Amino acid sequence: MKRTHNNGELRINHVGEKVTLIGWVAKKRNMGAIVFIDLRDRYGLTQIVFNEEFASKTKDIKNEYILQVTGTVVERSSKNPHMPTGDIEVDVEDFTVVNTAKQPPIIVADETDASEETRMKYRYLDLRRPVLQNKIMTRAKIVKSIHEFLDGEDFIEIETPYLNRSTPEGARDFLVPSRVHKGSFYALPQSPQLFKQLLMVSGFEKYYQIARCFRDEDLRADRQPEFTQVDVEMSFMDTDQILDLGERLVAKIMKDVKNIDIQLPLRRMTWHDAMEKYGIDKPDTRFGLELVNLNETVKDVDFAVFKSALEANGHVKGINVKGEASHFSRKKIDALGEIAKKYKAKGLAWLKVTDEGVSGPIAKFFNEEQLDRLLKAMDAKADDLLLFVADSHYMVVCDALAAIRNHLGKELKLYDPHTFDFLWIVDFPMFEYSEEDGRYYAMHHPFTRPKESDLDKILTDPAHCLADAYDIVLNGFELGGGSQRIYDEELQDKAFEALGFTEERIRSQFGWFVDAFQYGAPPHGGFALGLDRVAMLLTESDSLRDVIAFPKNTSSKDPVTDAPGTVDDAQLDELGIAVKEGVLDGESE
Amino acid sequence: MKRTHNNGELRINHVGEKVTLIGWVAKKRNMGAIVFIDLRDRYGLTQIVFNEEFASKTKDIKNEYILQVTGTVVERSSKNPHMPTGDIEVDVEDFTVVNTAKQPPIIVADETDASEETRMKYRYLDLRRPVLQNKIMTRAKIVKSIHEFLDGEDFIEIETPYLNRSTPEGARDFLVPSRVHKGSFYALPQSPQLFKQLLMVSGFEKYYQIARCFRDEDLRADRQPEFTQVDVEMSFMDTDQILDLGERLVAKIMKDVKNIDIQLPLRRMTWHDAMEKYGIDKPDTRFGLELVNLNETVKDVDFAVFKSALEANGHVKGINVKGEASHFSRKKIDALGEIAKKYKAKGLAWLKVTDEGVSGPIAKFFNEEQLDRLLKAMDAKADDLLLFVADSHYMVVCDALAAIRNHLGKELKLYDPHTFDFLWIVDFPMFEYSEEDGRYYAMHHPFTRPKESDLDKILTDPAHCLADAYDIVLNGFELGGGSQRIYDEELQDKAFEALGFTEERIRSQFGWFVDAFQYGAPPHGGFALGLDRVAMLLTESDSLRDVIAFPKNTSSKDPVTDAPGTVDDAQLDELGIAVKEGVLDGESE
Repeated sequence: MKRTHNNGELRINHVGEKVTLIGWVAKKRNMGAIVFIDLRDRYGLTQIVFNEEFASKTKDIKNEYILQVTGTVVERSSKNPHMPTGDIEVDVEDFTVVNTAKQPPIIVADETDASEETRMKYRYLDLRRPVLQNKIMTRAKIVKSIHEFLDGEDFIEIETPYLNRSTPEGARDFLVPSRVHKGSFYALPQSPQLFKQLLMVSGFEKYYQIARCFRDEDLRADRQPEFTQVDVEMSFMDTDQILDLGERLVAKIMKDVKNIDIQLPLRRMTWHDAMEKYGIDKPDTRFGLELVNLNETVKDVDFAVFKSALEANGHVKGINVKGEASHFSRKKIDALGEIAKKYKAKGLAWLKVTDEGVSGPIAKFFNEEQLDRLLKAMDAKADDLLLFVADSHYMVVCDALAAIRNHLGKELKLYDPHTFDFLWIVDFPMFEYSEEDGRYYAMHHPFTRPKESDLDKILTDPAHCLADAYDIVLNGFELGGGSQRIYDEELQDKAFEALGFTEERIRSQFGWFVDAFQYGAPPHGGFALGLDRVAMLLTESDSLRDVIAFPKNTSSKDPVTDAPGTVDDAQLDELGIAVKEGVLDGESE
Repeated sequence: MKRTHNNGELRINHVGEKVTLIGWVAKKRNMGAIVFIDLRDRYGLTQIVFNEEFASKTKDIKNEYILQVTGTVVERSSKNPHMPTGDIEVDVEDFTVVNTAKQPPIIVADETDASEETRMKYRYLDLRRPVLQNKIMTRAKIVKSIHEFLDGEDFIEIETPYLNRSTPEGARDFLVPSRVHKGSFYALPQSPQLFKQLLMVSGFEKYYQIARCFRDEDLRADRQPEFTQVDVEMSFMDTDQILDLGERLVAKIMKDVKNIDIQLPLRRMTWHDAMEKYGIDKPDTRFGLELVNLNETVKDVDFAVFKSALEANGHVKGINVKGEASHFSRKKIDALGEIAKKYKAKGLAWLKVTDEGVSGPIAKFFNEEQLDRLLKAMDAKADDLLLFVADSHYMVVCDALAAIRNHLGKELKLYDPHTFDFLWIVDFPMFEYSEEDGRYYAMHHPFTRPKESDLDKILTDPAHCLADAYDIVLNGFELGGGSQRIYDEELQDKAFEALGFTEERIRSQFGWFVDAFQYGAPPHGGFALGLDRVAMLLTESDSLRDVIAFPKNTSSKDPVTDAPGTVDDAQLDELGIAVKEGVLDGESE
């Protein structure tokens, strides 16, 4: 069982060589007395020719059989320029069936007609499709590139525990009942945050890990309960040095995997500017269509929606969809309005600019001077479509217009989908206020250090305290982010206090952690990249599922193994836990 | 906050240069008006001199303070040849205290007097000790070497899920209650076994992963509930090719990490020979002291212990402890007897060989001819100590003598502790029979393929069916192992049947897996290495805890975070589970 070559490597210069190949039957064609088989392995396809002598012995062979074939490489009479091995074929002199195959439930080829559900269930066949196999291999290439870069920068790969302590702040933990300490639970890590900080206290200076992380959240759209994070932390480096390192890492990945040179340094945009221009902290910067702040411009316009928003200290923002007025019917504009409503806006106001002025339901509220001011503010010309959202809440205005902007960018094909536009978002607020809970939450996490200039605001003016935190954004996705961390106990206590934690809670939940700061903790910071997302974007995939070998489905099930499953009562007894009565009957799914 | 050099790199050729260093105060000495501080970072130590101008400003500085120091490199008057930077010192021209430190609860130096418990609790300080820091860095070097080797051999790193399905066969699973599917549980993987086999069915051909694995077993001696496995699987390779790859991997690690060239190919020993010669399937081959099979030799000796063992189809084996008879008092021999009893032997018989014949309690049972035969069989000379164990169970004889042999090897210093002696153990039995359960268990796991020659024995003669399985052994430790795997449904069903699984159990537990074999599964096999153990042995550590940054203690607790811990009832409610009544009061620890 030895092969001389793989199925992707034979070329015209191999003609005349005797070779042995192994692979799966991708396609079989009878041409009169001759049989052609495309043999497939992870490297590619090679055409095998079974002449009359052998053709009859191929009768039972079907797709997905595994064959070992020995023969001579010959030049093809009709070459296939779309196939790397298309100049040659192998003339069989001997072959054996290594294994047989039933008719597979999906078509094992790039183009398959199977449903997502069937593909997920037979994932091991889905993964045979070259398009998907290449995505998994590209992911491995990304990982290799990361190892090379960080090893080369003197970072130490260190593993941190997966059986952790549960910390209620943040997303919901997956729990693991302890058998030895019955009634107690481990939690799977949402990130190695605290351990990586301890490693800095330990003096490792430069740490990284490609770590699995777990969040038991409801799986909206494209989330996974377990995901992989490239986790990087370093001591004694200022933010410029950390960003420099982060972007050189990304540049190496782009070069190694896509052969694209990205220009460094990446540009930086403050969180405030991103919100103002794009309404979102992960803007897709491949196209314009920027938001315009109209608070001043429309302050005296007698339109109730604008007025009530501004009177409540709210906001009015607009987008100029240039040259599209004539392409947007009432129906299409209404569809945009629906997007606005999905993001909690009360509605979407609009105007079409014509050579004669403006038209649209709210045109009547503008006098000439107000209109001039508006058109100037929005740089509006004839055939522009102007969209407006007003609300007392800044985030509602931003969310709604950002969603509309992303929708239009895609629909109007305002960008080349094969471009990669990276940037840093910096100067995030430390906190965001939850009116529902009446308290502040950490925008990144409670261990983020405020900007040096804002250190004193942490308790006195938390709403305006900026964090020394940053995100790296690509094409409208957050690839990752990080921050400088707090490294003294007093400041950490203040940060907890700003979040409304009692002294008792700080001690019981984080005492072990803040204690570490007493013994010579170095200034430190770092970042994490979402590996699944990086792989998804670099393979130009629509879903994280394409770059995870065995993903969970949207109801957190593994479609291959059908996990999670019920377990024996004896197993639960050993753990000292029981499933509550009625739970199994009323299972949510 | 920028340094020009680290604390391990300044040499005589840097003299005259102005440098900036950052590090922890490892030692501070006052010499009259001058203060010397050894500054430590992960790279080493550098001596800093604070002359009179600066010495007074160092008054408050204590060990583990972090300093940034700028000064000029000068040649030392009294050089320290034990320190790589011992030729120079840095004459301070400016310094700042980056952070202060309380008196640490342990001495942060290679030699520390703190208890294991204190060191574990303050692990972040323990990890500052250079000896431990170097072990963690060596572990990272091993991982780097593994990545380089396997990437170079065209293996693809692929991640498999951590939220899996529970399979009751094997060790105890850690369970993770599902919130979405209440009453159902995920299990953390004991190994990626089934997924890596599916990846072979998917055609990836060469896969690897450095995977965390979990076993909820009682932690004897030196085990961890989570451990790391280098997991390698490949298709279309015979066992010779797999072993060749495995040993080249190990050789590269040894070269990269220890700069030791190990000779390839490694020798191979059958499981049967290992048991006969060493009484164990992971023999420490750095020394002789081999077991001698005496079944034939003593068959007519009228000693009840031997007789009854042999009559019950049992075994008698001996060890010749050469030239040690005069060094072993009755008391010392009794201590060996205690070891034998610990391994369930009824006792240890012994003889001392003298110039005049033999002495010892069982001498009287041998007639002259029997004695000659014995001395010849054991190659015994004057002053040799002969030890015997007899039992009706082969494994009791083996276990007891293997333990005594390992004990003697260490006690008598029969080997150089800095040598590394690798070998493969091959031809394991497929099954071992449990008299307690009245059934066979898989010696490796139920997916192991029998040797080609024994394929038909799997059901007809399971006791003598050999597996195409192998372990790699170093200095008496199993570093890892693997096998060829079953890749057809029929044989897999037979293997399950041999283990006494019902058809129903096979379908419900493994149906999803064996189904995959129907669609063109390639011949495949692989191996896994225990990374923690490799790191432990290569760093010549006594415990796995030395090479894991944050290990659990022997009661499965994380001494730093105190995990596992209790959680809110609300968290359990969401999962549909409850801690059983009485469990929390009667907690086992």
